[in-house]
Amino acid sequence: MSITVVGSVAYDSVETPAGRYERKLAGAATYFSLAASFFTDVRVIAVVGEDFGPEQEAVFKARNIDTRGIEHTAGKSFFWEGSYLENLNEAETRNTELNVFASFEPKIPDAYRDSDFLFLANIDPVLQRRVREAMPGVKLVAGDTMNYWIKDHRPALLEVLKGLDILLINDTEARMLAGNNNLVQAARAVIALGPHSLVVKHGEYGATLFHESTPKGKKAELRTFKAPALPLQEVIDPTGAGDSFAGGFFGYLASQPEQTPTAWRHAMFYGSVMGSYACERFGTERLQQISRPEIDARFNVFRELTHLD
Amino acid sequence: MSITVVGSVAYDSVETPAGRYERKLAGAATYFSLAASFFTDVRVIAVVGEDFGPEQEAVFKARNIDTRGIEHTAGKSFFWEGSYLENLNEAETRNTELNVFASFEPKIPDAYRDSDFLFLANIDPVLQRRVREAMPGVKLVAGDTMNYWIKDHRPALLEVLKGLDILLINDTEARMLAGNNNLVQAARAVIALGPHSLVVKHGEYGATLFHESTPKGKKAELRTFKAPALPLQEVIDPTGAGDSFAGGFFGYLASQPEQTPTAWRHAMFYGSVMGSYACERFGTERLQQISRPEIDARFNVFRELTHLD
Repeated sequence: MSITVVGSVAYDSVETPAGRYERKLAGAATYFSLAASFFTDVRVIAVVGEDFGPEQEAVFKARNIDTRGIEHTAGKSFFWEGSYLENLNEAETRNTELNVFASFEPKIPDAYRDSDFLFLANIDPVLQRRVREAMPGVKLVAGDTMNYWIKDHRPALLEVLKGLDILLINDTEARMLAGNNNLVQAARAVIALGPHSLVVKHGEYGATLFHESTPKGKKAELRTFKAPALPLQEVIDPTGAGDSFAGGFFGYLASQPEQTPTAWRHAMFYGSVMGSYACERFGTERLQQISRPEIDARFNVFRELTHLD
Repeated sequence: MSITVVGSVAYDSVETPAGRYERKLAGAATYFSLAASFFTDVRVIAVVGEDFGPEQEAVFKARNIDTRGIEHTAGKSFFWEGSYLENLNEAETRNTELNVFASFEPKIPDAYRDSDFLFLANIDPVLQRRVREAMPGVKLVAGDTMNYWIKDHRPALLEVLKGLDILLINDTEARMLAGNNNLVQAARAVIALGPHSLVVKHGEYGATLFHESTPKGKKAELRTFKAPALPLQEVIDPTGAGDSFAGGFFGYLASQPEQTPTAWRHAMFYGSVMGSYACERFGTERLQQISRPEIDARFNVFRELTHLD
């Protein structure tokens, strides 16, 4: 089943202990799409400026990603500059230029309307909600957000959460959103806000799925499942690892005939696999090079990493 | 096979968000022994003061732990006071009184000399080395240490590492010991110092085993295995969780006829199980109450937590 994703297609300048790069193609929707494209059809909704040309378009086309929903407009694309020199687990933002994103009005191509899966990448919750409401027929909706929206745009974000099945955020965001430092209690609080499932990304420590399940005739219970992260000999660039996790996770789920508990578990592992690839080269480089057989081989490495027998 | 452990038998006063307690029986060797006692015979070497009486002795006896190596001397037992109010993952030390520990000269009872396993809990590396050298016949030696010894007693610690098979430390300690922030590179560096295996404890994110293996005729390779931590609804008191992990891990290994890769993997999970129990009540309370069937039931919860199929 196909996924529609709305989010940023952007340029990043990034400095890490391994080096730096200037204005490379990036953005949450880009990382997400590339990662998800190994599992299912992906359709992007975004806005770009005149600096987005055939070379960038080709990155999406090479992965058969539908770009009809990428609006081209006058001006420059969204730009982010960050550094991981101090801490590989958390970026220090040096500069953000919204540019064409400042007046982004997501438009959904008719050809996208039969998508069964919708991913709302980290953008203004007002826009997330608008896209969610414009696609009432989708079967499964996942989304991301960040500290800025949690702190300063809470009412709009709470409206988005009501329309989500799955929220994917990191530890700090989960604790901040719930106002609770205990992750299990925070997960319960987040799930009470709307989504039945919460994926908490722990960076180099993997990710935890909290899933509210109500067995027939029983009280709702919180189930958990953990995916490890791959111990990497060198983290070249952690930018986009979380979006790539989301792409692997949601892309795999969308590729399955049914969302069984086993499919969810495998999806968590595929999320971790795609997150690990994102870190191995600068920007989206590695995601542009890998193949599905490589992904499945690494999936088996992850299995080895945690399996007892 | 039986384990001899040398380390602190002490009193702790601890404050956590869940409450506080004054001068409860504690110490690394106590937590380790209790946890390991569910798997194998344990023998303790320590020193205590006049405040250690029949009530404390009974805690060990109830778990069939051999206390003939606990030396009773004039004065007070080692005392530690700490707080987890700021951070449940790391204690803030408020007070340390070495007391009888200041002049501790470990004495090994003859009855301990046939132990096949030796655990050197976190004490002065000079003492760890002395015990190691006094028991040349042991088959497997594991040990712990802490930032204080890594920073200010490095030469003595390096001598200890040469005699260890397994070092169990936390993330910060591993990075500090290796002088390298990348955990995989840090693991290689630590393994180059002596132990063939390094267990890095990540607190609420579980633990990673790095193990150098040299398949016949091949180059040495670093293998990794990850054990999750149990997502706990409430962490009452994290004191001793790392020592309990070590006890579960090493105790299980000692209970196995052979140290196969599967035994090591199970040992990592049993370590996590015992660490999770330690956090559930104040001090050693929970470790005093549990039973082996409960431990095995929780082991299966851990399996569910990470297993794909």
